[in-house]
Amino acid sequence: MEFEIDQARFLSALALAQTVADKRSNNMPILANVLLRTTKDNRLVCSATDMMISITESIPVEVKTPGALTLGVRSLHNVVRTLPNKPIRVKSAENHWAELSVARSSFKLMGQVHTDFPELPDPKGQKFITIPGHAFTDLIQRTQFSVSTDEARVNLNGVLFECDGATGTMVSTDGHRLTKYSLPLAGPKLDRGIIIPRKGMLEIKRVLDRVQGEVGLAVDGQHIFVQAADLTLSVKLNNVVFPPYEKVIPGEHKRRVTALRDELVDALKRAEVMAPEKTATVRVQLDKGTLHLTADNPDLGVAHQELEIDFEGEPLVAGFNARYLIEVLEAIDAKQVHLDFQGELDPCVVRPVDGVDLLGVVMPMRI
Amino acid sequence: MEFEIDQARFLSALALAQTVADKRSNNMPILANVLLRTTKDNRLVCSATDMMISITESIPVEVKTPGALTLGVRSLHNVVRTLPNKPIRVKSAENHWAELSVARSSFKLMGQVHTDFPELPDPKGQKFITIPGHAFTDLIQRTQFSVSTDEARVNLNGVLFECDGATGTMVSTDGHRLTKYSLPLAGPKLDRGIIIPRKGMLEIKRVLDRVQGEVGLAVDGQHIFVQAADLTLSVKLNNVVFPPYEKVIPGEHKRRVTALRDELVDALKRAEVMAPEKTATVRVQLDKGTLHLTADNPDLGVAHQELEIDFEGEPLVAGFNARYLIEVLEAIDAKQVHLDFQGELDPCVVRPVDGVDLLGVVMPMRI
Repeated sequence: MEFEIDQARFLSALALAQTVADKRSNNMPILANVLLRTTKDNRLVCSATDMMISITESIPVEVKTPGALTLGVRSLHNVVRTLPNKPIRVKSAENHWAELSVARSSFKLMGQVHTDFPELPDPKGQKFITIPGHAFTDLIQRTQFSVSTDEARVNLNGVLFECDGATGTMVSTDGHRLTKYSLPLAGPKLDRGIIIPRKGMLEIKRVLDRVQGEVGLAVDGQHIFVQAADLTLSVKLNNVVFPPYEKVIPGEHKRRVTALRDELVDALKRAEVMAPEKTATVRVQLDKGTLHLTADNPDLGVAHQELEIDFEGEPLVAGFNARYLIEVLEAIDAKQVHLDFQGELDPCVVRPVDGVDLLGVVMPMRI
Repeated sequence: MEFEIDQARFLSALALAQTVADKRSNNMPILANVLLRTTKDNRLVCSATDMMISITESIPVEVKTPGALTLGVRSLHNVVRTLPNKPIRVKSAENHWAELSVARSSFKLMGQVHTDFPELPDPKGQKFITIPGHAFTDLIQRTQFSVSTDEARVNLNGVLFECDGATGTMVSTDGHRLTKYSLPLAGPKLDRGIIIPRKGMLEIKRVLDRVQGEVGLAVDGQHIFVQAADLTLSVKLNNVVFPPYEKVIPGEHKRRVTALRDELVDALKRAEVMAPEKTATVRVQLDKGTLHLTADNPDLGVAHQELEIDFEGEPLVAGFNARYLIEVLEAIDAKQVHLDFQGELDPCVVRPVDGVDLLGVVMPMRI
C-alpha cells in the first residue's frame, strides 16, 4: 500500500477519528487505531470506532499501490500534526509497520494487523433523508444540558428524538428536570422515538459543526447514520424505553409569572454564588409584581434580590436549583419568559412568551 | 465603614488579590481573605498575602464612613463578578459581616476580625528605581522555563537577578540546563544577585502584563518591591546561594553548528513526538553540512530527519532532551542560531548568531 496525501486534509480526518477511537480499551486494543484503506477511485478511507460510535471519512489521495493498514491514531495524529503542510507519502512496510515521509524526514510507525479491525455498521441500503445540518445541531444544543450523566440510568442517558416527517422533537431529562424542544423538520418518519446516547449525540454535534448546509440522516432499528460531505457517522441507539415524558409536563397552572429573561438569568447567577454548593437551592417568593430571590449559605452569607415581574396571583414560596433554571432559560432565546407554578411542591414550567417551541420542567426542592 | 465603588474597578482588584491570597492555608485561614481599608483621601486599599507574596492596590472610591474589614476573597470576587457594572455600596455590619448592595439586590457576607490580618512588608523608605516594565517582563519571560520545579531544591527554585545599574541579567537552571539572558537596564545597583522564587516571579510578570510603561523597582535584603500605577507587589526573596553558574558555561567549543532556528525547532517537535515520553531523548548526529535527528520509542516507532546546516568539524553523535532544546530555541528570537559542542559527553551551548544576549546550556543524555 502506498499513497500521497495532503497534510492538512489528513490531519483534519485524524483529529476527528481520534475523538471517536477508544484509546483506553483493554479488551480490544485495536480500537485505539485508525483503519486506512485505499479505494479504486483514488480515495483514502479513514475509519475509527469505539463499537458504539463509528466514523468513516473518504479523502482524495494519489494511490500508488492499493491496500490497507491500521495504526495507533494518537501517535499518527501527533506525527502528522507536526509535519509541514506538504504532501505526505505513506507506505506500508514489513510486519504491519508504516512509513511516512516528507522531504528529508521519515517516520516509521508500528501498526497492527488491519484485518483485525472490526466491521463498521454499513450505511449502504439505508434510506437517507436530506435535512439542514444546523436544524439537527439546534435540537441537540437546546436539550443536551438536561441529559442525565448517571451511567446507571441508561434510559435517561441519552436524548429522545421523535420525527413525523414534518416536525422534529428532542426531549431530555435527568429525573430532576426535563427539556422538550420542537422545530419544523422534514426528517425521516419514525414509528417511535429513538434514544441517541449522550456521547453519540455530542459526536453528531461535533461533526455537524464542521459542515455547512444539508446532511443525510437515516435511522434503522439499531443505529442513526449521519452523512455529511465525505463523512459518515453512525451511532448505536440506546435500546431502552424513554419515560412517558408527557405525563411529567403539567397540563395547567395556577400562577403565571412573566419576566425578562436576561434579568432573571443574571439574578439567578448572582444567587447561585451564595447558594449551598451541592444543591444550588434558591428560594423563590412571588408577591404581586415582585419576585424575591434569596440564597443562603451558612458558610458564606446571604443574597437577597428583588425583580420586577408581571404577576397577579396568590403569593407563593418555593425552592429550586438555580443552575437548572439558568440552563433552561439560556436555551430559550426570547426577551420574555413565562414561569408557570402550581403549588409549592409542584414543578415550575419555563417557556418563552414568543419564540422557539421549547419548554423546561424543573422540580421543586425542599427549603 | 461604608464606601461606594465602581464594579469593574473592584472586580479587577479582587481578581489580582485572589491570585495572591492563600485559599488553602490551614494554619492561618485569614490568608484566604482580602483586607479592605479606606484612606483619608477617598481611596480603598485592597491587600492580600500568602506571607511570601503580598499585593496592595489603592482604588478611588467614595468613602462615606472610614474603617476596615476583611472578607474571604474567593466569595467576594464571585459575588462582584456577577454584579452589573454599576456603583456598589459596601457597608460593614455587626459581627464582622459586610453588606454589598446594588439597586434592589443585597448580599451579606461573613467576614473575620480585620485586626487579625497580618502586617505586609512596607514599601515606605525603599528607594525605588524607575525602569520600563516590559524589560523586566522580558527578562522573566525568556528564563522562566528552566527554573527548577523541584520544591526541595530551594536554590534552583527561583531565578537569579543581577543588576549593576546598566545591565540586568537573569539566570535560571534546573540542574539539567541553564539559561542566561542580559539586557540594558538602568535598574537598582545590587551588590550581589538576588533569587526571586518561582511563584513570585510569575506574579511579578502577571502584574507587569497589566500595566503599560514605567514601573518602580526596589530591593532590600528581604524583598523585591514592584510599584506599578496604584499597585504595590512585594516578594520575599529566597535567602540561599545560587550555584556558581559561570562555571557551568563552557568557555570553548570544538564544533560549531549554524542552523535556521525555525527549521530546527520544527524538526525537534516532530522528533519529540516519537521520543521516549519520560526522557524525550533524541539522537543528534553531525556530519559535514548535515544534522541527523533520530528519535526511537520502542512502543511507537522511529523518526529520522535530516537538516541542512553549516558545519565543517569532526563528526559527532550525542543525545539530548528534545524539550530542553526546543524551549531555549523558542526563547531566542533570531533567524539563525549557533549550537556549540565539545565532545559527546559535554553540554551543548545554544545562542543566536545575531540578536538578544541569551545563551542556553543543555546537558547531554546517554543514548
